[in-house]
Amino acid sequence: MKRSVKIVGAGGYGGLGIIELLLSHPEAQITSLVAATETGMPISALYPHLSGFCDLPVLATTDPGADEPADIVFMATPDGVAMKTAGTYLDGGAKVIDYSGDFRFNTTDAYADYASRIGRDPQHAAPHLLPQTIYGLPELHRDRLTPDRMLVGNPGCFAVSCILGLVPAFAERLVEAAPVICDCKTGVSGAGKKAAAIHHYPARYDNMNAYRLSGHQHVCEVERELSAAAGQPIRLTFTAQVVPVCRGILSTLYAVTGAGVTTDKLLDCYREYYKASPFVRVLDRSRDSGTAHVRGSNFCNLVVDRDDRTGMLRVVSCIDNLMKGQAGSALQNMNLLCGWPETMGLLRPGAYP
Amino acid sequence: MKRSVKIVGAGGYGGLGIIELLLSHPEAQITSLVAATETGMPISALYPHLSGFCDLPVLATTDPGADEPADIVFMATPDGVAMKTAGTYLDGGAKVIDYSGDFRFNTTDAYADYASRIGRDPQHAAPHLLPQTIYGLPELHRDRLTPDRMLVGNPGCFAVSCILGLVPAFAERLVEAAPVICDCKTGVSGAGKKAAAIHHYPARYDNMNAYRLSGHQHVCEVERELSAAAGQPIRLTFTAQVVPVCRGILSTLYAVTGAGVTTDKLLDCYREYYKASPFVRVLDRSRDSGTAHVRGSNFCNLVVDRDDRTGMLRVVSCIDNLMKGQAGSALQNMNLLCGWPETMGLLRPGAYP
Amino acid sequence: MKRSVKIVGAGGYGGLGIIELLLSHPEAQITSLVAATETGMPISALYPHLSGFCDLPVLATTDPGADEPADIVFMATPDGVAMKTAGTYLDGGAKVIDYSGDFRFNTTDAYADYASRIGRDPQHAAPHLLPQTIYGLPELHRDRLTPDRMLVGNPGCFAVSCILGLVPAFAERLVEAAPVICDCKTGVSGAGKKAAAIHHYPARYDNMNAYRLSGHQHVCEVERELSAAAGQPIRLTFTAQVVPVCRGILSTLYAVTGAGVTTDKLLDCYREYYKASPFVRVLDRSRDSGTAHVRGSNFCNLVVDRDDRTGMLRVVSCIDNLMKGQAGSALQNMNLLCGWPETMGLLRPGAYP
Amino acid sequence: MKRSVKIVGAGGYGGLGIIELLLSHPEAQITSLVAATETGMPISALYPHLSGFCDLPVLATTDPGADEPADIVFMATPDGVAMKTAGTYLDGGAKVIDYSGDFRFNTTDAYADYASRIGRDPQHAAPHLLPQTIYGLPELHRDRLTPDRMLVGNPGCFAVSCILGLVPAFAERLVEAAPVICDCKTGVSGAGKKAAAIHHYPARYDNMNAYRLSGHQHVCEVERELSAAAGQPIRLTFTAQVVPVCRGILSTLYAVTGAGVTTDKLLDCYREYYKASPFVRVLDRSRDSGTAHVRGSNFCNLVVDRDDRTGMLRVVSCIDNLMKGQAGSALQNMNLLCGWPETMGLLRPGAYP
Repeated sequence: MKRSVKIVGAGGYGGLGIIELLLSHPEAQITSLVAATETGMPISALYPHLSGFCDLPVLATTDPGADEPADIVFMATPDGVAMKTAGTYLDGGAKVIDYSGDFRFNTTDAYADYASRIGRDPQHAAPHLLPQTIYGLPELHRDRLTPDRMLVGNPGCFAVSCILGLVPAFAERLVEAAPVICDCKTGVSGAGKKAAAIHHYPARYDNMNAYRLSGHQHVCEVERELSAAAGQPIRLTFTAQVVPVCRGILSTLYAVTGAGVTTDKLLDCYREYYKASPFVRVLDRSRDSGTAHVRGSNFCNLVVDRDDRTGMLRVVSCIDNLMKGQAGSALQNMNLLCGWPETMGLLRPGAYP
Repeated sequence: MKRSVKIVGAGGYGGLGIIELLLSHPEAQITSLVAATETGMPISALYPHLSGFCDLPVLATTDPGADEPADIVFMATPDGVAMKTAGTYLDGGAKVIDYSGDFRFNTTDAYADYASRIGRDPQHAAPHLLPQTIYGLPELHRDRLTPDRMLVGNPGCFAVSCILGLVPAFAERLVEAAPVICDCKTGVSGAGKKAAAIHHYPARYDNMNAYRLSGHQHVCEVERELSAAAGQPIRLTFTAQVVPVCRGILSTLYAVTGAGVTTDKLLDCYREYYKASPFVRVLDRSRDSGTAHVRGSNFCNLVVDRDDRTGMLRVVSCIDNLMKGQAGSALQNMNLLCGWPETMGLLRPGAYP
Repeated sequence: MKRSVKIVGAGGYGGLGIIELLLSHPEAQITSLVAATETGMPISALYPHLSGFCDLPVLATTDPGADEPADIVFMATPDGVAMKTAGTYLDGGAKVIDYSGDFRFNTTDAYADYASRIGRDPQHAAPHLLPQTIYGLPELHRDRLTPDRMLVGNPGCFAVSCILGLVPAFAERLVEAAPVICDCKTGVSGAGKKAAAIHHYPARYDNMNAYRLSGHQHVCEVERELSAAAGQPIRLTFTAQVVPVCRGILSTLYAVTGAGVTTDKLLDCYREYYKASPFVRVLDRSRDSGTAHVRGSNFCNLVVDRDDRTGMLRVVSCIDNLMKGQAGSALQNMNLLCGWPETMGLLRPGAYP
Repeated sequence: MKRSVKIVGAGGYGGLGIIELLLSHPEAQITSLVAATETGMPISALYPHLSGFCDLPVLATTDPGADEPADIVFMATPDGVAMKTAGTYLDGGAKVIDYSGDFRFNTTDAYADYASRIGRDPQHAAPHLLPQTIYGLPELHRDRLTPDRMLVGNPGCFAVSCILGLVPAFAERLVEAAPVICDCKTGVSGAGKKAAAIHHYPARYDNMNAYRLSGHQHVCEVERELSAAAGQPIRLTFTAQVVPVCRGILSTLYAVTGAGVTTDKLLDCYREYYKASPFVRVLDRSRDSGTAHVRGSNFCNLVVDRDDRTGMLRVVSCIDNLMKGQAGSALQNMNLLCGWPETMGLLRPGAYP
């Protein structure tokens, strides 16, 4: 019998992404959908392409059906929700995979630093759960994403692209600690489903812009992961930019290479680092590097290059922000926590064009 | 053991579409890819998202490997190719599904009429094959798309949207014979993979236009199917238009309703007509009708409506031109010709957004 | 000295459009900007491209400065605003050009019919003004848009494209009264500046859909103008559709031609009808017909054609919905009401690509 | 009487851009258009929006009319053309403004370095002209762009955005010599009018990618200008990326600030540097920074910022690649070379949305 899955925050793009993936998963099936708004109708009324595939009702959190237990709970909810409710699900025996920043940190201090960047209360509502949560980036933490674990903090979309693109170089000490630059461009779906003036079609269609220059919250997790790999504190300059694309993040990452480091050495290092990671493709600079090549799939494509004129490492990191950047990683984490093959239900190339 | 599939014209969007679908088909598998250009490299060099999923070489037609027999041959080729080569495949025992207009007609006269519209030689190169070909629109001709048949002419993308949108009304004599209008808008992928000035991004991005006002070749097959359903000759006015969308056809179809015909009667008629057709959704005008809801899927969504002020039937017909308009229908035809469930490998909702 | 201009509803796309045009008008200049929301800041804070060109404050309607008199008042406001305030401006001696439906009709009955379609109170708030308003389509009513007139109802964007595309054929009795079909596609800017779920970039980018199938309010004015031209009541079937374009309306218009009517006769009729209209281009079907060719300009391009197989007149009518469909027509009307050359400040080709 | 202008390479986007600008220039007027392809028809047949505005024929270079002298010649031609023909125009007394790299360098060595990057013959065809050419970036070289000068090398589009964004910091020694990073994103119109597979709408619409990672030719001029300003050699890492935008370049520029440098100090420096430059807007990071705000105008918007966590200068530099990045700068250079006000014919905000 398939494991039962509850999706909280089912009505947003993050909820939709995991619904679409679970429709063809051989071992798990959706049993309930919960949301804070647009409830009381089938999910296929919100997303007509699901008609006949998933017509489950979207339950309000106050609906008695919303309390039905499930084996796995995806919290596709904004910051501040999972920290209040994950405990109950965990007590009921469910595995919880949270999309927000609530469970990406193992200490209250680390959480407080993150929370302060997004203007939230630095006090975590469930500090006792922090020690047990795992940062859900299997390429780095596969050995800890095991069937005995119950709680995962799914990584931020920008963070996935930056960490995967830089961590091998830091782990192998091929680059200096500073400066490090993450110049990141995202498609609009990363901002979610809610209509906003800046993403109104006429405002967005022939426009690109930087935003939140004063500091992006994903920096915390990127710096933490890189620092851990480097064995020393790493601070980076991060620029978030949005372009008229729906799906896709292209992060161009820069660091200063050490003495004797060549492009070949870098490529070898990256290929070795990711040899057991089925969703990372390491490419040299002769290869195409567009987001269209990972659109609709769980892959991260990394073009790894050294600019010999200046000695800079330059990595072009491409993901689909709704897949490897969100629902795809979440499903990958579910597979690992349930002891299933990491790629189950995820081996699809996406559709082109 | 899976049936073997050869794809001729593998490098274009039509070839790619059937490759993507076959990757997850339980009974058929691709064994060879053939093309006229961009040969001698893996298909995944042309389409990097296929890396690791399909890395078969693209063979030139002159390559000895291109002659390997296969159980099923998809001809994703332009007009004039299949008529010259299908005979050989058929003689070898293969079932042949052709995307072009070569095998959409059963008589040399009907073909000559079509060919003259696209400026081709009206003489068919394989007239002896015409009597056996089936027009591959399962919703109309399912009973003839049977395991004993070997040759299918896959329908034109515009034609699929127009025929499905109008045939029930004509079959049930709910509309008059004239006037009939098909106002059709297509995404750019319908023009294929080859770069053209009119589809260069800067020329296309904030632009919509009508084209080929002097006559579109898909009209022939639409008129033939509607005439057959109506039991009298139907002539229609057809307008092809292109908008800055990649995937999607939205055809708005108009005809004059007969006495006593109401919207409810029309809806009943359409629902009855398509009750055994899993890929047609009949909707009333209160329902959404956008191409995004069929994007990436094999569905045709029909909003059926009568304008009570003027007595016009109005049907808004949406398909993904690369799926139900091309590769999706082709796979559906393969399933029927092989005696497999019509929906095998096709029950997917597409991805949104 | 230049005439003074007040723009009410300055913060929307309609207000912005007339601001941009007035910046280079030789006889008129903006003296005040008024809006209901986003007030208390320079207009260039809302629209940064205006920095240094127009930095006037956006005044709240309650701001004393908002009452400053002006020679000309543009009401770029939604339905229901102008009918309440135009009287005051007129009493102050100003000429008033209203974008909404409030002053497109000369009788309370005609207004009530319109109002009922958009769910508004059918009682007009200023019925005494209706007899004096002129429908602001200079190509039809140039002789009445004279310096002695004070009040203009600027036409609806869809209506401009449909009326200009069909009125010559009706005026010269070249087509039958029924059926008449207006299949209209608009860019998203026609829906205004306000963010909406359906126009959120991810929901809109690769999507086209029909909307408001139960009836669009612009039909009233189109039917009235065509009926007046035809000398008999005309009823038409109107379909509104939206495509992922920012600026542009492409309306494809169909009617049944009478006996002996040829494409040449139609072209002659249209050219004669518009010979004194500098902003209408009549083209035959061999010519390009895309919205990109009128983007940013006040032109209406009409491709006029008869489908000889079916006898249908088919006109492809292209405008920029924010120019000829709104601010451009408004400026054209201002010129006429002030006795200036009709083309003053409007002879610009737009920018391409 | 207006000065006469010849445009060579009139059929591309660069030629079109200067045509559009000259249509409303008070002192100069187009007298002939010359091109290598698509000749023998009016320019308005190529670009229908020009109908009635500019219907001059596009002359082949072999057409006798192509030799008519003119006061000013714009060479909107690819590399290698102007170096062969500019001499003749100069001998005839014309001022020549060239869009390509042919005249951006004053020495054969500097040219050879550039030429080698784009795979061209390093030998310049008219080395005797190099000493007299001026690099046409008025914000840096206004004092040398004077009426006695005859030859200008218009800068590269990426180069404009990078140089304007970095030169004040280097000139005032507020940043270190290395590392310097230019992360540049361009719209597709920068690649010109010619259709290419990578810019075919279906390949481009939901895609962004880096390209030419092995080295972009614009780096030469950026490094030269920054080195001159810094008084020491500057080498930078440059990444060219393309996004689905038609018009716009957004370059994000990074350098390490020196001791004691604050954001305020940087803003003061930039504002002082550009106080006499009407087309540069210096903004702090609280301000919007999108390309839509410079679309259709000759402005360069610079958001200047110091990341206090890392000490990096970060400048977000936005231009319209076809205006300030090409035709707008060319017109600005013409104005200076003719002794007219620098802003003549260029003070327009662009159109939004």
